[in-house]
Amino acid sequence: MRWSQTFIPTLKEVPEGAEIPSHVLMLRAGLISQVMAGAYTYLPLGLRALRKAEQIVREEMDRAGAVELLMPALTPMSLWQRTGRDRDFGPVLIHFQLQRGNRKVHLALGPTHEEVITDLVARFISSYRQLPITFYQIQTKFRNEERPRFGVLRTSEFLMKDAYSFGTSLEQLNESYQRMYEAYCRIFDRCGLEYLAVEAESGPIGGEASHEFMVPAQHGEDVLVKCDRCSYAANTERAARRKTDQPPPTEDLQPLELVDTPGASTIEQVSRFLGCEPQRLIKTLIYLADGKPVAVLIRGDHEANENKIRRFLGASRLELATPEVIEQVTKAPVGFAGPVGLEGVPLYADWDVALVRNAVVGANQNERHYRGANLGRDFLVPEDHFGDLRMVVEGDPCPRCESGTLRTSHAIEVGHVFKLGTKYSQALGARFTDRDEQLREIIMGCYGIGVNRILAALIETSHDKDGIIWPLALAPFEVVVLPLNVQDEQVRQVAWKLHDELEAQGVEVLLDDRDVRAGVKFKDADLIGFPLRVTVGQRALKQGQLELKWRWSSQAISVPVDQAAEQIPQMLQQARSVPFRQLLQEQKQDTSQTSG
Amino acid sequence: MRWSQTFIPTLKEVPEGAEIPSHVLMLRAGLISQVMAGAYTYLPLGLRALRKAEQIVREEMDRAGAVELLMPALTPMSLWQRTGRDRDFGPVLIHFQLQRGNRKVHLALGPTHEEVITDLVARFISSYRQLPITFYQIQTKFRNEERPRFGVLRTSEFLMKDAYSFGTSLEQLNESYQRMYEAYCRIFDRCGLEYLAVEAESGPIGGEASHEFMVPAQHGEDVLVKCDRCSYAANTERAARRKTDQPPPTEDLQPLELVDTPGASTIEQVSRFLGCEPQRLIKTLIYLADGKPVAVLIRGDHEANENKIRRFLGASRLELATPEVIEQVTKAPVGFAGPVGLEGVPLYADWDVALVRNAVVGANQNERHYRGANLGRDFLVPEDHFGDLRMVVEGDPCPRCESGTLRTSHAIEVGHVFKLGTKYSQALGARFTDRDEQLREIIMGCYGIGVNRILAALIETSHDKDGIIWPLALAPFEVVVLPLNVQDEQVRQVAWKLHDELEAQGVEVLLDDRDVRAGVKFKDADLIGFPLRVTVGQRALKQGQLELKWRWSSQAISVPVDQAAEQIPQMLQQARSVPFRQLLQEQKQDTSQTSG
Repeated sequence: MRWSQTFIPTLKEVPEGAEIPSHVLMLRAGLISQVMAGAYTYLPLGLRALRKAEQIVREEMDRAGAVELLMPALTPMSLWQRTGRDRDFGPVLIHFQLQRGNRKVHLALGPTHEEVITDLVARFISSYRQLPITFYQIQTKFRNEERPRFGVLRTSEFLMKDAYSFGTSLEQLNESYQRMYEAYCRIFDRCGLEYLAVEAESGPIGGEASHEFMVPAQHGEDVLVKCDRCSYAANTERAARRKTDQPPPTEDLQPLELVDTPGASTIEQVSRFLGCEPQRLIKTLIYLADGKPVAVLIRGDHEANENKIRRFLGASRLELATPEVIEQVTKAPVGFAGPVGLEGVPLYADWDVALVRNAVVGANQNERHYRGANLGRDFLVPEDHFGDLRMVVEGDPCPRCESGTLRTSHAIEVGHVFKLGTKYSQALGARFTDRDEQLREIIMGCYGIGVNRILAALIETSHDKDGIIWPLALAPFEVVVLPLNVQDEQVRQVAWKLHDELEAQGVEVLLDDRDVRAGVKFKDADLIGFPLRVTVGQRALKQGQLELKWRWSSQAISVPVDQAAEQIPQMLQQARSVPFRQLLQEQKQDTSQTSG
Repeated sequence: MRWSQTFIPTLKEVPEGAEIPSHVLMLRAGLISQVMAGAYTYLPLGLRALRKAEQIVREEMDRAGAVELLMPALTPMSLWQRTGRDRDFGPVLIHFQLQRGNRKVHLALGPTHEEVITDLVARFISSYRQLPITFYQIQTKFRNEERPRFGVLRTSEFLMKDAYSFGTSLEQLNESYQRMYEAYCRIFDRCGLEYLAVEAESGPIGGEASHEFMVPAQHGEDVLVKCDRCSYAANTERAARRKTDQPPPTEDLQPLELVDTPGASTIEQVSRFLGCEPQRLIKTLIYLADGKPVAVLIRGDHEANENKIRRFLGASRLELATPEVIEQVTKAPVGFAGPVGLEGVPLYADWDVALVRNAVVGANQNERHYRGANLGRDFLVPEDHFGDLRMVVEGDPCPRCESGTLRTSHAIEVGHVFKLGTKYSQALGARFTDRDEQLREIIMGCYGIGVNRILAALIETSHDKDGIIWPLALAPFEVVVLPLNVQDEQVRQVAWKLHDELEAQGVEVLLDDRDVRAGVKFKDADLIGFPLRVTVGQRALKQGQLELKWRWSSQAISVPVDQAAEQIPQMLQQARSVPFRQLLQEQKQDTSQTSG
């Protein structure tokens, strides 16, 4: 392909509103162009990279035995109502009524397709003989992002690979899950990503076990938690911690004292008003667990983890109580709940609450708190009501190994695998007859990959000051042939011929046939980040040479003109066999050795 | 691929609501499954066929030098307002407001993408040096179909290839148009369709010249008009006719007579009331041409063609006058307009009006008509106010050749090419600087193909009582290997081995490994319509033979077992080199010779 025959509008300036490297570089390299907030056109080079990622995903899904189909984006709202996800998704679900003749139809744009696929399976699968089966599609999804940003990382429309497994038993589910998990590893490996599979909550999608595939990246919106010793990794929603054997503080017990705290109800306000650190405070949160009120104590500087609380209580639903319920339970307005004298509601506490002496707690009276509140003396929490009920923080002890410490880092979520269970098959009547002629619900898993995010995650973690550094697997073109001066007849002939010969051998090669200064071409080649650059210049040609340079290397290689068409495909083949991160790593070491 | 590893839910019964062969067969062959009215999931086999059609389209677009990109489906409503197409599309445009934080955004799902691509071009193209260029995408489009039906022929969501050309001059537009036209011919040829490129009006999409690519088909929703002698073909909106030199009728003139026609205002009512044929009536239609009222006379049994009238008047807009205007012009309620005594408004007439003697016309009085109205005596139409102003009908004379007669037939529209001109570049500010530093508007063309419709059109025109007859180019699999009895060890070994050997050679082959009766397998193979069926049976194996049969042929061919893996790819290669319609034709001749 010649540069002049495609469309590559590179930009010199950093576009307005672009905050993170992948966004800046995708715009500057002419991969995408913004249509409106959170909506982008994929320009020719961006589309080529996207299609390569899509194809890798497809190949590995096929290899894992998943069956490809394609569901519509427009779905009947009634399906979402049957599973209750019209409520769960809230404003994220894009839905509308359309007039058709004299009737209205209520449609939703699929943010995911559990409902549609389960409905299909309910109609066509009825026997254990047809199971297990895993379906997948690669399709445009729609979600109303309240705040679209960070380029293609957070948009209301994106390309998703969504797969759904259907089985007769937990064993079949676990096998399908494992096969998908392994396919995901192959996909992200092939795409040249450095990733972690972390334990995750299943969130509003519902279910029983899940892993997120995360690419650690400075500008990632997600946070992952990792042990500095062992392989434990989880997202912050899921991350657990070990109970420390830290002894309670030996500070003298002070008397319980009721104090006025006018206008102070939040942790920040109270600690400022009373001049004490937030870790001296204990929050009392009133939840409804399966509809029944409970009180949960969390140290003031910590954040409650509702998933942990829900699991600890063995509840299937947990939500913060309404102001009405809180006032009923505490006899005080919202913001002044406390454990002292709180009656008629079970009390639970995070482990760390036991380590606070002379705590500040709400007094269950309007604009009043207690100072000097102490567990055991002023309020009681049964031994077995203590647990890991808060979000972990940097420095917490690892829940898996004996000696590790948890560290947090930002990351980009690129994939997610879930064990769903029977939530959807139950709601939508997807049942099968087993060997004993018993009718049972099909057991499901679901598995998603954000295809666009693969590109953004790659760029976030593989670029330098000059531009993107693509792995061969995702690069829009593997090779750019760069004639320094297209007016020079010999340069022109050599460059055009080499391009044609490489193309004939199936190499994805772009010829920069523009009549512009060499500096502009070099800058654009680095900005776009083609893996291999072949420079055709008068001076080298006089010595019968061409200059080759890998984008990830600082060293150029000279190759005889008449051997280039043969050697380049071999070099590409060899580079393909080395994991991309290793290529990048070796280069870093080379550079440091050279400069050392 | 093995049957058991994919998902092919064939149906024995004709599904409810399926009216036409493509709809019935796509459902029965397990290509698609309905999610709701007008929304289908493409099941594995359907998706394979769809992707093959898509890939043919892509290859020919690339060959024509068009540049692929991908625009978002969600587009800002403001773009549609700038071109006025929010109104033009009316209820077909799906749009809605979304809440994002504390503001609302108004979005539309793109039914086509002139606005988005022109906006992109306006931002990135500024010089004649960047032109001409043609962009294309293959993307899901959304249109609210008032009455979705006929399977994938009329749905609210469909896969469209839309291309847009941008040039500096009419010459560049014509070149781009011609290149697209030729690419379309190659695409439909490769897909095995029998099609016509017919002249077409450009409709609400606006523009100056266009062709529709139509596949004549009994159940097509479009009607095309074709000369029975020459190559003239057009859609009904566009079709013209030659003026006949038929002499006026010689019937005696009768006196003009005012008659009461209580409750009769339509052609049907009046002709019934007065006991005369509709062709004895002359309709008087009041239009607003660029805002000014005109009266147009059309024979009672004919239908006015507003495009012809608009062009004949040299007007840029034409619409039926409102009841208020009609009453003002005719001094009578709607339904009683007539040419006798009509003043202050220019009168035009279709040629055929001159052939009506003793006509019945409205009397410009409530519930009254004239009988015995005659041109020249009772009302006048200037010679140069006569023209071809009506829709053609079967039997009209061809406008191109001297002796041909127009015939109409039903057809499926699969593609459309348009010369747009500057409608969108003007509205959206897509201008370029020409060689003389003059700023001018870019001249556009647009070119669409309905990818799903390719499949439906193929099936509508290539099936028999047993099922679909696919061309190799679109078939979900080229070859089906059909072991008659998978319990038989030898049959099993031969079939599995042949499948593996063919697959290794890149043949798209499906092994029907199901343990079901041979009759079921044969029926399904014919229903789905794989081009080549290879039967592996005990009896033939004893003689070292396999049985091969083309789907379009009634004769089976015996091939030695040990040569099959070599011969089948050769046979496929040979069959690919013959146009599909020729294969079908030859077969028909063979059959008729055999039976004759």
